Amino acid sequence: MKQVARLSGRPVRASRGRFLVEGHGPVTELLAAVADPGSRVGVVVDALYTGPDADPAYARAAAAARVEVRTASAEVMAAMADAVTPQPVLAVAHSVDVGLQQVLDGRPRTLVVLAQVRDPGNAGTVVRAADASGADAVVLTTGSVDVHAPKVVRSTAGSLFHVPVVTGVPLDDVLAACRAAGVRTLATAADGETDLDALQDEAATGRGALTEPHAWVMGNEAWGLPAADAARADHRVSIPILGAAESLNLAMAATVCLYASARARRAAAGQDRA
Amino acid sequence: MKQVARLSGRPVRASRGRFLVEGHGPVTELLAAVADPGSRVGVVVDALYTGPDADPAYARAAAAARVEVRTASAEVMAAMADAVTPQPVLAVAHSVDVGLQQVLDGRPRTLVVLAQVRDPGNAGTVVRAADASGADAVVLTTGSVDVHAPKVVRSTAGSLFHVPVVTGVPLDDVLAACRAAGVRTLATAADGETDLDALQDEAATGRGALTEPHAWVMGNEAWGLPAADAARADHRVSIPILGAAESLNLAMAATVCLYASARARRAAAGQDRA
Repeated sequence: MKQVARLSGRPVRASRGRFLVEGHGPVTELLAAVADPGSRVGVVVDALYTGPDADPAYARAAAAARVEVRTASAEVMAAMADAVTPQPVLAVAHSVDVGLQQVLDGRPRTLVVLAQVRDPGNAGTVVRAADASGADAVVLTTGSVDVHAPKVVRSTAGSLFHVPVVTGVPLDDVLAACRAAGVRTLATAADGETDLDALQDEAATGRGALTEPHAWVMGNEAWGLPAADAARADHRVSIPILGAAESLNLAMAATVCLYASARARRAAAGQDRA
Repeated sequence: MKQVARLSGRPVRASRGRFLVEGHGPVTELLAAVADPGSRVGVVVDALYTGPDADPAYARAAAAARVEVRTASAEVMAAMADAVTPQPVLAVAHSVDVGLQQVLDGRPRTLVVLAQVRDPGNAGTVVRAADASGADAVVLTTGSVDVHAPKVVRSTAGSLFHVPVVTGVPLDDVLAACRAAGVRTLATAADGETDLDALQDEAATGRGALTEPHAWVMGNEAWGLPAADAARADHRVSIPILGAAESLNLAMAATVCLYASARARRAAAGQDRA
């Protein structure tokens, strides 16, 4: 139990490779990923704890994932929890690293690369958007937030167990590997040489960057992508701002871009069929 | 100063009609809105405080808005602040209510209605998305979060001072007023009779709901829009979920819908010109 409570700080997590998954939705998704032989996400459950009021459905889901359920008192559950409101179920898991080359070898159509992203809520929400929009993987560069921090795990709403997440690769290596694999890199920028509307117009005719393999490259939530980094991507793309707002936040920007990619893939598929 | 610190709780804010605006970006946007005779947002600054390290630019912006600047010590700034990190500038403001009929009389093209939304971050981010996407106004129904709570104000990133926000109207009254004004209501729903892709395909040909005046109606971040409420809207629209994610969060869903509206207005304008 003390070991579980100690999982809250990054150095401990990194050295032990273990992270906490709290609450009904995330634990259910975790167990489903473990039970699914076709899952693209490598994750292992080390321990699963339920409180006194836990739904008996966890026992069935745990059995399907071949995980033992340990019951704990409300006090013990609260001591282990990171969430402000202790949840009725909690797991300790570790993930099997997914390599960037492994993702690229799978011929991805859409990736999203987060460069030096620090905010847990934004990073987790981007993983959720990648999942919802059918993207192939998320890459977090060196210097980004720990994707297994409890707030990131919560913000993914279970999507951490659906979409492969690659971590700890320097941005230059990501750009070089994408180029070598024929994946075009699209950096979001306030002053891009093109904008998302133009790319979507092009995609509606079955052509352009969004209809071919591509990776969105997005910078830190506070200072964006440095101009020198954006310059190394294949294209710089602005998201149209039509009112007086200065910008969208990172999670909103990623969601809009990833849904544009999803529509473009659909248009390209329609053209192929025609 | 004590009166300023007391602005943190809703009953006090509601009875006094005053709210806190903290930090460089939001205060700058507030002063710009006050100084702009064409602003669609009615807002009045009651007091403006800067700490010892404040940028002298505030004095110029305040002068343009005819607001007096009061300087305060770091301790006093911290005592007045709601933000965890006290900001170098802080204003007390009150807004002039915008009525729903006033918004509808302005012949809006796109509105977003939040029904019983409680989460401050989600509500504020939707106001920001409405601004960025060029929507005409945001409506928060009775029972929604106080749009002037400090966390909502922060999450709007200044957009609260760009886009009119109507509050305290029951959902049934909003739906009836939209119908009377010829504004079609589109409720987001997991099992809609149409989806956003279909609406966008239709809009690309210059037709359909998105090319005409419409209001997105979105439910609470936890339980969505009750089926009985969705049934009273003109259409129920699903956002395609292409991966294994269960859903998008409210702010992401609103951003995707509002950007689809923006593209549709642009397509309709192009057709008009053609």
